[in-house]
Amino acid sequence: MNELGEIETPILLTSTLNVPRVADALLDYMLTRPGNEDVRSINPVVAETNDGYLNDIRGRHVGRDEVFAAIEGAKAGPVVEGAVGAGTGTVAFGFKGGIGTASRRLAGTLGGFTVGVLVQTNFGGVLTIAGAPVGRELGRYYLKEELGEAGGRNPADGSVIVVIATDAPVDHRNLARLAARSMMGLARTGSAASNGSGDYAIAFSTYRGGGLLSNDATSPLFLAVIEATEEAVYNSLFRATTMTGNGHTVDALPVDRTLDILRKYNVIASQR
Amino acid sequence: MNELGEIETPILLTSTLNVPRVADALLDYMLTRPGNEDVRSINPVVAETNDGYLNDIRGRHVGRDEVFAAIEGAKAGPVVEGAVGAGTGTVAFGFKGGIGTASRRLAGTLGGFTVGVLVQTNFGGVLTIAGAPVGRELGRYYLKEELGEAGGRNPADGSVIVVIATDAPVDHRNLARLAARSMMGLARTGSAASNGSGDYAIAFSTYRGGGLLSNDATSPLFLAVIEATEEAVYNSLFRATTMTGNGHTVDALPVDRTLDILRKYNVIASQR
Amino acid sequence: MNELGEIETPILLTSTLNVPRVADALLDYMLTRPGNEDVRSINPVVAETNDGYLNDIRGRHVGRDEVFAAIEGAKAGPVVEGAVGAGTGTVAFGFKGGIGTASRRLAGTLGGFTVGVLVQTNFGGVLTIAGAPVGRELGRYYLKEELGEAGGRNPADGSVIVVIATDAPVDHRNLARLAARSMMGLARTGSAASNGSGDYAIAFSTYRGGGLLSNDATSPLFLAVIEATEEAVYNSLFRATTMTGNGHTVDALPVDRTLDILRKYNVIASQR
Amino acid sequence: MNELGEIETPILLTSTLNVPRVADALLDYMLTRPGNEDVRSINPVVAETNDGYLNDIRGRHVGRDEVFAAIEGAKAGPVVEGAVGAGTGTVAFGFKGGIGTASRRLAGTLGGFTVGVLVQTNFGGVLTIAGAPVGRELGRYYLKEELGEAGGRNPADGSVIVVIATDAPVDHRNLARLAARSMMGLARTGSAASNGSGDYAIAFSTYRGGGLLSNDATSPLFLAVIEATEEAVYNSLFRATTMTGNGHTVDALPVDRTLDILRKYNVIASQR
Repeated sequence: MNELGEIETPILLTSTLNVPRVADALLDYMLTRPGNEDVRSINPVVAETNDGYLNDIRGRHVGRDEVFAAIEGAKAGPVVEGAVGAGTGTVAFGFKGGIGTASRRLAGTLGGFTVGVLVQTNFGGVLTIAGAPVGRELGRYYLKEELGEAGGRNPADGSVIVVIATDAPVDHRNLARLAARSMMGLARTGSAASNGSGDYAIAFSTYRGGGLLSNDATSPLFLAVIEATEEAVYNSLFRATTMTGNGHTVDALPVDRTLDILRKYNVIASQR
Repeated sequence: MNELGEIETPILLTSTLNVPRVADALLDYMLTRPGNEDVRSINPVVAETNDGYLNDIRGRHVGRDEVFAAIEGAKAGPVVEGAVGAGTGTVAFGFKGGIGTASRRLAGTLGGFTVGVLVQTNFGGVLTIAGAPVGRELGRYYLKEELGEAGGRNPADGSVIVVIATDAPVDHRNLARLAARSMMGLARTGSAASNGSGDYAIAFSTYRGGGLLSNDATSPLFLAVIEATEEAVYNSLFRATTMTGNGHTVDALPVDRTLDILRKYNVIASQR
Repeated sequence: MNELGEIETPILLTSTLNVPRVADALLDYMLTRPGNEDVRSINPVVAETNDGYLNDIRGRHVGRDEVFAAIEGAKAGPVVEGAVGAGTGTVAFGFKGGIGTASRRLAGTLGGFTVGVLVQTNFGGVLTIAGAPVGRELGRYYLKEELGEAGGRNPADGSVIVVIATDAPVDHRNLARLAARSMMGLARTGSAASNGSGDYAIAFSTYRGGGLLSNDATSPLFLAVIEATEEAVYNSLFRATTMTGNGHTVDALPVDRTLDILRKYNVIASQR
Repeated sequence: MNELGEIETPILLTSTLNVPRVADALLDYMLTRPGNEDVRSINPVVAETNDGYLNDIRGRHVGRDEVFAAIEGAKAGPVVEGAVGAGTGTVAFGFKGGIGTASRRLAGTLGGFTVGVLVQTNFGGVLTIAGAPVGRELGRYYLKEELGEAGGRNPADGSVIVVIATDAPVDHRNLARLAARSMMGLARTGSAASNGSGDYAIAFSTYRGGGLLSNDATSPLFLAVIEATEEAVYNSLFRATTMTGNGHTVDALPVDRTLDILRKYNVIASQR
């Protein structure tokens, strides 16, 4: 994608060990589209995070049926968030993670462009929401577990996938800059980008015209990416539900206690 | 530096347009060291941020005398912070920025390594301190000015230099990962990495032995970089003093009001 | 691989659209190794070139049986070259390409290290052998076809995979430099790295000790990579045989005429 | 340049240790242009190779007068080649190197675009001209010296600067691809990109319109860069003259003997 600046397929998200099966099913889908009878080269785009704590990841249960259903079921409108799809088994900040999305529309004087972000959250750190130390207050502070761990993969580890879509007329260079800014949104949520994190962001533009946005006009897009990424992470947590699998249970973020913490830290107004 | 993984000179910081003169003086210094009589290749390391709002940047006033004095005056012990050196004229979050530093030492069970960070803060954004929206509360929210600006460079723009030193046995690849994590520390302070930001981080290790740290042991170093970078930015602001130059005045962060805000948002305990 | 500097599986080569099936079979293999019962994360390494001209690439005929056979059949000793394995259907410089390999051993005074290179050749250009314009002399000059082509993918297009192995004690940074030098070996053969070329090189070291080679000692390794890559490309062509498939036939390099050309250009001595 | 995709000044070439003084003089020039009275940020573009064998490099003799003369003397038309300007003291393949230039114009059916390349040659390797082993035939094969060298920097070491200009409508991503291809042109000349080589290519487009060239149309530009780079290197050698300096003499390429070698290897026709 970086060499050619092209995305040839839908972007699919799945579990680490399931990438090949999903990619193969995506090829099945693409090769059988009318008009593609002579196509002999496709670069399928499939991203992953590792949900092996809750999911029978070795079983690789997502295949052709699920992939076709996902693509054919894609539609405009609100995105289902939380413990759904590739987010069904993910864990973020020690709570149940999942899929989250958010967007920003720039003011007309700044071009009126839209930036949308979708995340698949599966990483460690100490959750911070709009600055409030939610993870610390809830005692979900991963370094304790880390230090006590006898071996194996750090429970704080993990990754995130960030997909950024915009209608702004930006070229590959500026799309790469947008992608880089999404990591700043993650940082605000308490991610520490630990060793095992294969954090990955992909940004694309739906614009197909000629004139490109000047560098001077990109800063508001950068801020939009940062804010939308941060909010998408929160949404993935607030919409996730407690999940049991693989002999483990991961609790959803306790919303009421979290709201109390947000009040304590003045992020939201106290109720009287 | 990335090709060879080598740093051949002290790392000097200065103002954008002064880089050539400082680099030339650094060559003067290096070429005249005893033992360097036959040296015919030196790659001087000089980093910059643009202090043209407060500084007569076009005058390029830093030269051989200042460079020699800086190198020869370098010493161990506490680092002078705030509006000093290359930080004399910088502006961060609309307040007087400057030089800041902070460090972390890992627990002995994690290797006992030290990570030190020094920053030269000169960038925009809305200041957040340990999660508290200090910039917003103080009304220093740059987008208002940005929208009203008739032309010229965005007042919110600017860059930061981050210098990361460690004694951990990490190679070039992991040093690059440390450097990348410093951007997450910046994100926590409210930086938006706007268009004009040539944010730059350089990381080096003082370790000279053979065995290298495994990937699995790097996460605590990553967290140390993030935390130390965040703290170093705050230190640069808390130690800076109001500065007038070039017909402009930039106020220091109002410490008392800032502490009040930190209390309001429960970052520090309220006094009774 | 660049983030962690680790290769977790054998490196498999296949056809573009077959990557997912081969990767999935590689996961099957890895997950079922004794001792891997609890492994929940594997990054399979599978590289590809597009053999869709001779191969029924859409059929994706390589699967679990072939992958297991390839891994279990791997052995030391001479490598089979030419139109074998993933090289069965490849085309290089308009002739039948395939798998080629070559190596260099440095003099003891330079460390005595070995560099081995294996290529899967499937790209365009005008073949040059040790400087002699073989492709031009044989009338296999791709631009003619290119200009006459009505549409579709350029017949001169295509890619190469270069795998570089060494026992030299080099870290990730210097391995990346070795990989970059392999492109210089390709250039000597007449490759033009056309648009569709996803030319890719992966380099690894089998060294597991502590002390690393200094930068100053790397130049002979660079030259070894360049030479071995160039020779490996030639070997892939000289060992390949004419192949028919998919309704197309691609001729092997005509060895006798090629030798005549090499004599004409004084690359090899004339016979009397 | 990679972050913003912008070049703000003329591109100047000089000697390694002279970069700061040339950059400072370039700032002098830019700051004093009419209309630039309020400019407070300029990123000067200055490239270098190390000519310390023939040049009193430690003296840094190029300053404001020379820089202003160079810029103000720039004009359209034939470029002076050989041992001139920053090429006065350079050495390539053991012969006197220097400045060389070449260009290609694509056929109208391919867009009719022009690609121009200028090189400053100062690197090692065994000279190959259009495939003929000129360096080997002339006994200028650097590895002999390398092996015999007791210490210090490898005489085969050194770098090249490649400046690529085009009027093709290509964006930053494709310009980076053009720049990468220039290394393939260097490889054809016998460069081995040894350890000390800071080989650097910069590519820019003079196109200022909206519509960009599609990826599919870039291959002829790639080939143009490869060919023009190769030819420019040869031109730098054929136009250079024997030079003495710093107590050393470096011979120009012996043109007559070189032509004999080119005849021997059938690169040019034998004269009768």
